[in-house]
Amino acid sequence: MAQDTFSKEETLAMRRRLIGHSCRLFYSDDPVKIIRARGQYLYDEHGKRYLDCISNVQHVGHCHPSITEVAAAQMDLLNINTRFLHDNMVQYADRLAASLPDKLCIFYFVNSGSEANDLALRLAQQYTQHQDVIVLDHAYHGHLMSLIDISPYKFRKLSGQKEWVHVAPLPDTYRGLYREDHPNPGDAYADTVKDLIDEVHSKGRKISAFFAESLPSVGGQIIMPQGYSTKVAEYVHSAGGVFVADEVQTGFGRVGTHFWAFQLQGEGFCPDIVTMGKPMGNGHPLACVATTVEIAGAFTANGVEYFNTFGGNPVSCAIGLAVLDVIEKEDLRRNATKVGAHLKQLLTQLQTRHDIIGHVRGIGLFVGLELVTDRRTRAPATKTAAEVVKRLKEQDRICVSTDGPWENVVKFKPPMCFSIQDADLVVRCIDQNELKYCSKPLNSTKHLTLTLQIITKRSMCNINQVYFYQFSQDTRGMSFQ
Amino acid sequence: MAQDTFSKEETLAMRRRLIGHSCRLFYSDDPVKIIRARGQYLYDEHGKRYLDCISNVQHVGHCHPSITEVAAAQMDLLNINTRFLHDNMVQYADRLAASLPDKLCIFYFVNSGSEANDLALRLAQQYTQHQDVIVLDHAYHGHLMSLIDISPYKFRKLSGQKEWVHVAPLPDTYRGLYREDHPNPGDAYADTVKDLIDEVHSKGRKISAFFAESLPSVGGQIIMPQGYSTKVAEYVHSAGGVFVADEVQTGFGRVGTHFWAFQLQGEGFCPDIVTMGKPMGNGHPLACVATTVEIAGAFTANGVEYFNTFGGNPVSCAIGLAVLDVIEKEDLRRNATKVGAHLKQLLTQLQTRHDIIGHVRGIGLFVGLELVTDRRTRAPATKTAAEVVKRLKEQDRICVSTDGPWENVVKFKPPMCFSIQDADLVVRCIDQNELKYCSKPLNSTKHLTLTLQIITKRSMCNINQVYFYQFSQDTRGMSFQ
Repeated sequence: MAQDTFSKEETLAMRRRLIGHSCRLFYSDDPVKIIRARGQYLYDEHGKRYLDCISNVQHVGHCHPSITEVAAAQMDLLNINTRFLHDNMVQYADRLAASLPDKLCIFYFVNSGSEANDLALRLAQQYTQHQDVIVLDHAYHGHLMSLIDISPYKFRKLSGQKEWVHVAPLPDTYRGLYREDHPNPGDAYADTVKDLIDEVHSKGRKISAFFAESLPSVGGQIIMPQGYSTKVAEYVHSAGGVFVADEVQTGFGRVGTHFWAFQLQGEGFCPDIVTMGKPMGNGHPLACVATTVEIAGAFTANGVEYFNTFGGNPVSCAIGLAVLDVIEKEDLRRNATKVGAHLKQLLTQLQTRHDIIGHVRGIGLFVGLELVTDRRTRAPATKTAAEVVKRLKEQDRICVSTDGPWENVVKFKPPMCFSIQDADLVVRCIDQNELKYCSKPLNSTKHLTLTLQIITKRSMCNINQVYFYQFSQDTRGMSFQ
Repeated sequence: MAQDTFSKEETLAMRRRLIGHSCRLFYSDDPVKIIRARGQYLYDEHGKRYLDCISNVQHVGHCHPSITEVAAAQMDLLNINTRFLHDNMVQYADRLAASLPDKLCIFYFVNSGSEANDLALRLAQQYTQHQDVIVLDHAYHGHLMSLIDISPYKFRKLSGQKEWVHVAPLPDTYRGLYREDHPNPGDAYADTVKDLIDEVHSKGRKISAFFAESLPSVGGQIIMPQGYSTKVAEYVHSAGGVFVADEVQTGFGRVGTHFWAFQLQGEGFCPDIVTMGKPMGNGHPLACVATTVEIAGAFTANGVEYFNTFGGNPVSCAIGLAVLDVIEKEDLRRNATKVGAHLKQLLTQLQTRHDIIGHVRGIGLFVGLELVTDRRTRAPATKTAAEVVKRLKEQDRICVSTDGPWENVVKFKPPMCFSIQDADLVVRCIDQNELKYCSKPLNSTKHLTLTLQIITKRSMCNINQVYFYQFSQDTRGMSFQ
């Protein structure tokens, strides 16, 4: 295995020659080549450090040594398919069961969130013997053919909407049908699902599943209004369907206060199927479907084996167990709660100074900063959001990205070891970026204070680069290179 | 991570409680608990060794130390998604490209053979703008919803045949339409595909792809007749479709003489899409789609990103590169050629003594032993095949399994480090099992010779167990336990 064998230009040229161009790069004008990482920091081929605010897959931190150790030990001992008995899979399932409501007690291990969602769809359709699926607007559930069908984010650009797929409004209280001024947006949005079910029934069709992320991510880092899921589950169950909670992006303590984001909806709510993925193996391809005895029983009753070659193998499960151990030992849920609240508070403070910030929302280390060109109309500031992403990378070496139907929501889903200092840094840098790009610059005193604060913080790591960065920032066009 | 934390009974009880029963166990009456493995050998919780003739995933041998070393080093350094530039993916794609015909030069990395086949189907449909797919009878292409649709082995038991899926006869020259006595079975079977295309066209439908394993595996370890693929590709191309070669089970040198099984059809034949999976990461979830510039271009032209969270990450690609290195350094293709030929020769000798052996076929370490109750009618000896599998496990601690529409083909797809001695052992043990179970036992002199040969061989590893095994075998019912 080679490390940094090629120059960045060579790597890029080989990538253009050998890899399908549908596989896109971040910062396509000038992509970043990363050769090592640790915790929440990435390092490029020159050793330059980037703060990573987006790798929710590397959940407990990049290259966590205790995960590597466990993986290597298990790889040296045994990796085999699950047609043979092994302790790791059952032990892992037992640990996951302990994190979930009692009724979610049967597990299927797979290799990706997409494989999990595909299986969830099969389970739902097999159990209900119905076909139709209700999904949320702008949802994304994976790259497989079956999931493009249930992902408005994809099917609108591709094959179009199938007759068995129905799109409910995104319960977005900032931009959606019912907003923060509505007395009960949870019920109001749930009623849109009820109406949709009635419409489906009027066509003689039947609902197999309501399928939604517990916090819609691609949809724009949306926090579901309280009461929504409980009501939706009621309506869906009445129609003979099941509630699938897609926790691929949101599970494993990201929201801090709870292990699963669906638990934010209160103890009265429990989905029938939960799918998990991204953070589960800290980068190792590992995913899972949890469901009830009844749904699993219906799936078994068809008499057909479900075999997933790599799913649930001893190495994957050892890694999964190690991730759970690190979350507990390092109290990462508490860190997510604390740092997430701090980040949200800082961003909310920023909102008082910058009109372009329309909305700050989030829970734990799942945070969105929605930019608008006009607070009244809430017109999305798509271009500025892209500029913020680009400048944060170029000037501050901070990686963020955007989400939402208009790509105007700057998202934060960092590794769970993200610190108070990291939050301070990113918010200060956003503040700086705003200064150059937004209509209402701060006065120079404020600017100076911030600049000095950044210098103080950053000089601890690399003073030369910080000064260079500050000069090039403050002198607006003058070059010191 | 725990090793052998629970007794086998406890593990089994937990599995029954926690894991969907659709996930089946080998030897369901008395499953095997494996806790470590090395090369072609598995070890149970009592340290008892099993010879593994079926783990084609652990391609270069279980727990190969150089793979573990590379994986651990890369896990410690970096694991990140492919929106960042990294050398491993492009380097790996470059190495794979070198193994393929020039036109197959664009790669997409995914996590399982199923994900690869799903993407292949998308690529084919996007490129051709046609929908229909021709597959071989009894084919299995994966567990995803899209792949159940194109897998007669699955859809016949589940959702049934879709109107856009068409099933061509399996080109099986032992049991199929055209047999060993046909002057040109390759052309004859290809003509069945031509006829099917004509039928599809007569319905006003259009072919997107012909989708087939290069050597049908679940179909019964079938060796395609010469000329078949070239002719089929001609017909499919004329219809505006593409040829997808599923190499998930057969690639990476398993056939010995060639790196890819499709290459057995001669240099004149080249598929338009090749999918890879199982052996690619020696157990690590790693898979890939290779295709042409034109097909990849059409996929890019739809303007939609293809993003696979784990696919092509630096750890997966480092492992993939390490597997290629081991195949080369240990000359495993030559070993597969040599040991596979030896195994086939021994089984062919066995055929001269046992009427129940209807057919021996294979290439490299992809070998099938088809059992029949009557050589003339070729009636499948399904029950005996199951008994052979069971007895080999119980008495000889050798793992084989069955395939084929009647589950009467004993299959051999061992790790590529399988040795001449391993082949000798398994064939002698099959011979012994036959002695007890088949209608025409050998005469006692022959039996004695074989028994002594086995004692000689096996005594090298564990003389006590061998003697015990021989006693219990030879005394037919007397117990020495």
